[in-house]
Amino acid sequence: MTQHKVIYDTDPGVDDAMALVFQALHPDIELLGITSVYGNATISTTTSNALYLRSRFCPGVPVARGAGAPLHRAPPAPLGWIHGDNGLGNIELGEPGDTSLDERSAHRFIIDTIRAQPGGVTLIAVGPLTNLALALEADPEIATLVKQVVIMGGAFGTAGVLGNVSPAAEANIMCDPDAADIVLGAPWPVTVVGLDVTQETIMPNDWLAGFVDQGDAGRFVWDVSRHYAQFHKDSAGLEGIYVHDSSAVAYVLAPHLYTVRNGPVRVVTSGIATGETIQKPTTMKAPAPDWDDRPAQSVCIGVDAAGMLDLYKKTFFKAL
Amino acid sequence: MTQHKVIYDTDPGVDDAMALVFQALHPDIELLGITSVYGNATISTTTSNALYLRSRFCPGVPVARGAGAPLHRAPPAPLGWIHGDNGLGNIELGEPGDTSLDERSAHRFIIDTIRAQPGGVTLIAVGPLTNLALALEADPEIATLVKQVVIMGGAFGTAGVLGNVSPAAEANIMCDPDAADIVLGAPWPVTVVGLDVTQETIMPNDWLAGFVDQGDAGRFVWDVSRHYAQFHKDSAGLEGIYVHDSSAVAYVLAPHLYTVRNGPVRVVTSGIATGETIQKPTTMKAPAPDWDDRPAQSVCIGVDAAGMLDLYKKTFFKAL
Repeated sequence: MTQHKVIYDTDPGVDDAMALVFQALHPDIELLGITSVYGNATISTTTSNALYLRSRFCPGVPVARGAGAPLHRAPPAPLGWIHGDNGLGNIELGEPGDTSLDERSAHRFIIDTIRAQPGGVTLIAVGPLTNLALALEADPEIATLVKQVVIMGGAFGTAGVLGNVSPAAEANIMCDPDAADIVLGAPWPVTVVGLDVTQETIMPNDWLAGFVDQGDAGRFVWDVSRHYAQFHKDSAGLEGIYVHDSSAVAYVLAPHLYTVRNGPVRVVTSGIATGETIQKPTTMKAPAPDWDDRPAQSVCIGVDAAGMLDLYKKTFFKAL
Repeated sequence: MTQHKVIYDTDPGVDDAMALVFQALHPDIELLGITSVYGNATISTTTSNALYLRSRFCPGVPVARGAGAPLHRAPPAPLGWIHGDNGLGNIELGEPGDTSLDERSAHRFIIDTIRAQPGGVTLIAVGPLTNLALALEADPEIATLVKQVVIMGGAFGTAGVLGNVSPAAEANIMCDPDAADIVLGAPWPVTVVGLDVTQETIMPNDWLAGFVDQGDAGRFVWDVSRHYAQFHKDSAGLEGIYVHDSSAVAYVLAPHLYTVRNGPVRVVTSGIATGETIQKPTTMKAPAPDWDDRPAQSVCIGVDAAGMLDLYKKTFFKAL
């Protein structure tokens, strides 16, 4: 069985937390560390939440605190109406448990960990891409040393939308489009798991209700998702939740569930389309100087949603 | 039967010509005039071609010469490798016939014609949108007097691409994005027929071969499309041609063949995404100041391609 050695770069965040539990439970994933980043909430809140989740679901895994703001822009306002004021759906968070932080910054932790296991580390990034851009700037060589980078972010229109926070931009990319353009332009293998597949994958509330009696992790998945589900109901009329961050984990575990398209990707960093991700598919013949000197990356444009949900559920039900 | 009184704004162009013959033959369309614009070829060539087509397929219809360059940019290079050096697939063009031009510029012709029949005129625009923008600038009130505006242009990603001349831009919009942003922001009812449906509608070469013995118009459709088909084979591996401009005509005649999405549309006018069309669907709740003060327009995102081809074919076969 493949063992994926993963650094999880995250801004918990309800769906971040659900994706962390997924990784903590799945036998094919070994968590090498958790790096925090601002995004769904402030860096203070997301780091606290990472520590809480570590104590409860993956004790002993290092947590390193990351960036509190984008490379060149002001930090975004916390998304309390989506993720709750505490970033974890306003559930009551018990004892903090082990609050020890790695002494390194997130980007230094990423560099050191990749260098310690050349070709062996998978980076799953589900928040703004600031930590990854800082790591690349400090040590560009890591691009040739990482196994793969899987990001949740962006949108390419194939499922009908280019964004969720603007008509052109998805939230993670919008937070730090400059960082995203650096990350997507580096010569490491990136797979983009964006709204094209994450909004096509929905965990219905009645399906989530089945987790309630599946141990502490299952109970947590139900509890943490209630406020988030209310947001989905209010904003999109859904009786369930989009599966954003856990889809990046599912891609690592079961890439056959996804259809990918190859080609370089740029991120728009100014104007009305700021934060948009635009791929030049390799099948496109017209010259495009803004894309043509950049590495081809993989973009997910199709998903076996039932297969993804099944993978998630089995991970919890087997884990008991 | 509905009679559509149409001004056809066009840059012939092979598919422009095929769409003009479609209109000339269809009993539900009354052509009030043809206005030329640069685009697939120079304004000199497209105007000559409009005159040639008028003489051969719709004698007596006024032709007015339009803009030779975009509002604020340099004119594009003629697309000889797509439309032939003469803009009409390098077929031999016979006697020029009636070469009389309306004395007015295209945009003045558009204004006068709309004002002469308030609420009665449909504007079908299948080239760069310069003439329409000039008409709006000279007489903004026409927006409230036109029946509808149907444009071929743009792309919204639902069929997998945002553009054909860049990763973000379709050719007509790319020629004059400033004009397109004006046209799409005016308070007239616009339907956008873009690559989302035109590249989903393909006339196969063997299907086109059936036109050869269907009179002069049928013979013309076959002849004029041969060079264009070679371009499609070379660039996309197709044994047929995408149906761009004729799709705008089909939308006017049979809107039930198309699925539309509503919401304001912006055009990107600077940066790497220049020429991109971005819609904010009315279902999107997030505020978007760059869109929210603009009128909702209709964007085609689905098509009954077989129904469209059937409509085109029947128009020729009935006309004999």
